[in-house]
Amino acid sequence: MVNVGIIGAGRIGRVHVESICTQVPNAKVKLLADPFMTEETSAWAKGMGVEATTKDYKEILADPEIDAVLICSSTDTHSPISVEAIKAGKHVFCEKPIDHDVAKIQEVIDALKDSNVKYQVGFNRRFDHNFEAVQSAVAAGKVGDVHVIKVTSRDPEPPCAEYVKVSGGMFLDMTIHDFDMVRFLAGCNAEEVYVEAAVLVDPAIGEAGDVDTAVITLKMENGAIAVIDNSRKAVYGYDQRAEVFGSKGMVATANDSASTAVISNENGVTGEKPLYFFLERYMAAYAKEIKCFIKAIEEDTDTPLGVMDGLQPVLMGLAAKKSLEEHRPVKISEITM
Amino acid sequence: MVNVGIIGAGRIGRVHVESICTQVPNAKVKLLADPFMTEETSAWAKGMGVEATTKDYKEILADPEIDAVLICSSTDTHSPISVEAIKAGKHVFCEKPIDHDVAKIQEVIDALKDSNVKYQVGFNRRFDHNFEAVQSAVAAGKVGDVHVIKVTSRDPEPPCAEYVKVSGGMFLDMTIHDFDMVRFLAGCNAEEVYVEAAVLVDPAIGEAGDVDTAVITLKMENGAIAVIDNSRKAVYGYDQRAEVFGSKGMVATANDSASTAVISNENGVTGEKPLYFFLERYMAAYAKEIKCFIKAIEEDTDTPLGVMDGLQPVLMGLAAKKSLEEHRPVKISEITM
Amino acid sequence: MVNVGIIGAGRIGRVHVESICTQVPNAKVKLLADPFMTEETSAWAKGMGVEATTKDYKEILADPEIDAVLICSSTDTHSPISVEAIKAGKHVFCEKPIDHDVAKIQEVIDALKDSNVKYQVGFNRRFDHNFEAVQSAVAAGKVGDVHVIKVTSRDPEPPCAEYVKVSGGMFLDMTIHDFDMVRFLAGCNAEEVYVEAAVLVDPAIGEAGDVDTAVITLKMENGAIAVIDNSRKAVYGYDQRAEVFGSKGMVATANDSASTAVISNENGVTGEKPLYFFLERYMAAYAKEIKCFIKAIEEDTDTPLGVMDGLQPVLMGLAAKKSLEEHRPVKISEITM
Amino acid sequence: MVNVGIIGAGRIGRVHVESICTQVPNAKVKLLADPFMTEETSAWAKGMGVEATTKDYKEILADPEIDAVLICSSTDTHSPISVEAIKAGKHVFCEKPIDHDVAKIQEVIDALKDSNVKYQVGFNRRFDHNFEAVQSAVAAGKVGDVHVIKVTSRDPEPPCAEYVKVSGGMFLDMTIHDFDMVRFLAGCNAEEVYVEAAVLVDPAIGEAGDVDTAVITLKMENGAIAVIDNSRKAVYGYDQRAEVFGSKGMVATANDSASTAVISNENGVTGEKPLYFFLERYMAAYAKEIKCFIKAIEEDTDTPLGVMDGLQPVLMGLAAKKSLEEHRPVKISEITM
Repeated sequence: MVNVGIIGAGRIGRVHVESICTQVPNAKVKLLADPFMTEETSAWAKGMGVEATTKDYKEILADPEIDAVLICSSTDTHSPISVEAIKAGKHVFCEKPIDHDVAKIQEVIDALKDSNVKYQVGFNRRFDHNFEAVQSAVAAGKVGDVHVIKVTSRDPEPPCAEYVKVSGGMFLDMTIHDFDMVRFLAGCNAEEVYVEAAVLVDPAIGEAGDVDTAVITLKMENGAIAVIDNSRKAVYGYDQRAEVFGSKGMVATANDSASTAVISNENGVTGEKPLYFFLERYMAAYAKEIKCFIKAIEEDTDTPLGVMDGLQPVLMGLAAKKSLEEHRPVKISEITM
Repeated sequence: MVNVGIIGAGRIGRVHVESICTQVPNAKVKLLADPFMTEETSAWAKGMGVEATTKDYKEILADPEIDAVLICSSTDTHSPISVEAIKAGKHVFCEKPIDHDVAKIQEVIDALKDSNVKYQVGFNRRFDHNFEAVQSAVAAGKVGDVHVIKVTSRDPEPPCAEYVKVSGGMFLDMTIHDFDMVRFLAGCNAEEVYVEAAVLVDPAIGEAGDVDTAVITLKMENGAIAVIDNSRKAVYGYDQRAEVFGSKGMVATANDSASTAVISNENGVTGEKPLYFFLERYMAAYAKEIKCFIKAIEEDTDTPLGVMDGLQPVLMGLAAKKSLEEHRPVKISEITM
Repeated sequence: MVNVGIIGAGRIGRVHVESICTQVPNAKVKLLADPFMTEETSAWAKGMGVEATTKDYKEILADPEIDAVLICSSTDTHSPISVEAIKAGKHVFCEKPIDHDVAKIQEVIDALKDSNVKYQVGFNRRFDHNFEAVQSAVAAGKVGDVHVIKVTSRDPEPPCAEYVKVSGGMFLDMTIHDFDMVRFLAGCNAEEVYVEAAVLVDPAIGEAGDVDTAVITLKMENGAIAVIDNSRKAVYGYDQRAEVFGSKGMVATANDSASTAVISNENGVTGEKPLYFFLERYMAAYAKEIKCFIKAIEEDTDTPLGVMDGLQPVLMGLAAKKSLEEHRPVKISEITM
Repeated sequence: MVNVGIIGAGRIGRVHVESICTQVPNAKVKLLADPFMTEETSAWAKGMGVEATTKDYKEILADPEIDAVLICSSTDTHSPISVEAIKAGKHVFCEKPIDHDVAKIQEVIDALKDSNVKYQVGFNRRFDHNFEAVQSAVAAGKVGDVHVIKVTSRDPEPPCAEYVKVSGGMFLDMTIHDFDMVRFLAGCNAEEVYVEAAVLVDPAIGEAGDVDTAVITLKMENGAIAVIDNSRKAVYGYDQRAEVFGSKGMVATANDSASTAVISNENGVTGEKPLYFFLERYMAAYAKEIKCFIKAIEEDTDTPLGVMDGLQPVLMGLAAKKSLEEHRPVKISEITM
């Protein structure tokens, strides 16, 4: 049994509380910390099976019975708490991104060097049944050498402009998942990024200094070309697809929907929309990533997504920002560390 | 070059005129006959490339340059004109059904015995790309031994009550195609039929003595069970599907539609309806059956659908009528010849 | 919090243990009984969160703190334990079928008359996301008046002959789910049944006195015609589909599979097989039926599937057996109670 | 009746001969010219209904009875013969591309200025049922404002290196169709192009100075972003898809295949591959473009694809070449005329 402390009781923190309490029998949430912990949240957590709650995450780090922490707090705290937790000897599961600042990520990398703790980054989509199936097919050689990777990633609703301002921009906030997906499917890092982007969904996003629509082309180290298309608003729901094309064929996914029911009538043949958003689509993936983290701790193996997997998408995101600003292809190696 | 005379310039006669003139380069329509031949029809036919038109089909039978006739006249004339044409030494393509009366079909069978003419019945669906693919898969052993055959056949609009009265009833008018399809897919004849039917679409059809909705179960000679479901009205268009299930798997078809375009929006994910009706769905099949008929003449081989293939579905239809009347399973062998 | 006792720790009993422990927060398994309770099973159960285990189900009935029992024992015990449990004042969730003998079901009905207990029968497929979507569409009038209902239900592997002998036959063991589905989708009872069936999968099933392939036609009280096709062996996996056709259109489902990934290569365009069997396909449905049962207890409402819903499919199954034996359509009313 | 002369009896010339002879009743092929006209070709053409054949295309231009010419000769002759034909007062249907040299296209534009002839360029894919459906949906506002356009275009087999050398490169030979498709779907011109390309299919293509795999991003005048992905070799067949995403939804197509038959067995659920190549996929589109050309002549209206529609994709192709060479985004306006 692995004792876990969770730092952050926001949306994603609660997802992990629920996953662990209902689907990870060999882990226990011993303490849930949030500076804004309310009685309601505390009651909900205890109802789920959490042992105790606190406002101070340092209690988690100080508790000798806690083996591992999940860092689900705001992005700016990810890297410092990571370092603290590593120093406290706790295994760390850190939500993405580790940081927007490469130097801060480097501090985490440095802290890990002299430690024995497991570190996993929360790129949950790798644990989605559809993307796992694509990656497995690619890794099994079913498409041969990879030539082209296509990732479509569109949200059902744009964030508010306030959020956009602190988000680090679409590339570090939203596309970062797709950057990881491209690495996952290609089985290698990106070399270069080119961005074509626009504000087509909401002018307020443009006023906040960001874009809401983008097509991002990447040259991968293995020679494959990848392309990501992003939109902050797809009216039909969360559009999450991937296609990998190679010398021996293609593997592609469709979206998941609530049922396979299709109605045929005078208006056409109509199936259900994709599942609405990430909580609907990736609930099982959130549980699976934690199961893998716990398993890596119990079996003393590497986590499936280490700190370097947390670094690369940030480099890609920073290169994408630079490409957009300078309107030219940007090499990942240009992003100084 | 095979010279053809076409008897009947109604809907299906015109389909064959057009097919031959545009898609069967080794056949020529020398004469088109219809008792109600108008100047407009004649002009249309000549514009298509038909040499001449007449009101008297006997001119076709008398023309020594004509090798083959297509009988597209009203159902009651199919068998007598078949006999006349056979006696005149013409190859015969006869629209379905040969007759509703088994004795009349027997006269055609008898006439063919002492002749060298080719005889083909117009079960066009065997030449449809989808059903051909299903039959090919079955014949190639891809589903193993056949256990269950399912045919869905629904029209987009019911016929008028006047037509229903002279149609011979749904089983001989509409289901007869499905009876042929079941034989085509099973590769054998039916032994027994059971009908569950109702008037659910239009009470006028019931008043005309017919049904408009049916589920028909058949025991095939090879042990397989077949089931046909029919409706005279599917608001979403012409629903024509088949599924064959066996010891090694299943092969199934979907409907054809005008395009593969699918629209995703707030209401769902919507593709096009099936093609509207038989002219849209089976246009290529109509041309293909005639090509096969012409080829059988040119190469002196059997036609793909001989007179016995015309007889069996009529026996099945008559057994179905008897099953409906007597509310019990009826053996095909009960239908006296 | 509803305290539950589970009688039977076989496959389905364990499914319910797991569902309740992980997905039904407002229920607790206080006691799990099985005459063959082993230490391993007991340990597993306690690991899942079950309070205690026993070999004697009567301990469950005698425990005043237990509100409800789940009867997951062998079929022959369903009705007597139901009666006992009702008399002990426990709410009852009973696996299907209640009994193969109508008189025994009547005893349960009688026992319920003077009681206040909730009774639910385990037709789990009603809680499957796909069939729920079909039923919702039908109930919302999206297909108009129902004309034809089609249910395909094929198992991936046949049971062994030993099981077949005690199973009550395919209609009461396997088709009984489809009989319930037809009632669920039609919104009414069946009036008459006709069976066409054969032994095509495994001669040993025939030697055990049963069939393994069937097409079953039903006349429903609302005038609709239903047809079920069953096979004990579909090599491609568990085939569970439904289609409802009516005056305003059609609603149909496809199977679920492990992912939407599709591989295109020289051999074609290949997607995954359907999920293997009922544990894969209906896991969420098993949890949902129990949630509904617990909710009915907590809110003091009717269960979604009462004892009469348990009776009707048995009547349909017995009528189907009679139809097969007498080779004729059989009215449900012929099955004496 | 429009009298047509066809210049060039190669693959595409023959496609047009066949289309006109069998599917365009209001046009007649009076003369077919090819410098390498053989007796076999001549016999074939006459069998199809062509009146006469010649080795000298100037006979076509000199024939006062000929209304229109189809230029299906080698690419380098397209523009000079266009100019000659325009001066001879013939309506012109010219295969794509008009020329690789913008100055040569300008000569055609200039020649048209003082003439009354109709000019149409052979971008056949606009007449494909699937792309027509997408464009219609976009034009009808069904996806709202267009944000992202995606075109996938992959050939089943790469051309030989010899062909590659004279082809003008992949962008002017293959992608040119996709450039036109993007304009068709966006309803406007492109402003800027960025290319990421590689030699992944066949090193001989690289040695011939070309690429075989590309992802091309375009900024459209209406603000939309378009992305084309190309490969010279998709082992599963001709992959021709489009997706348009906008403020109100998405419309997307799938490939066509020979049938809808799907086989389910132990290996999965397998449908047919896409139709093999352009002759299979676009046969109906080739006929339709000629019907539209003939209609424009008969009704004295604009052709659906004028000379400026021939120019723009060439500009896009030249910009793409420059982008590849200079590894930067290139504005269409940089391509000097």
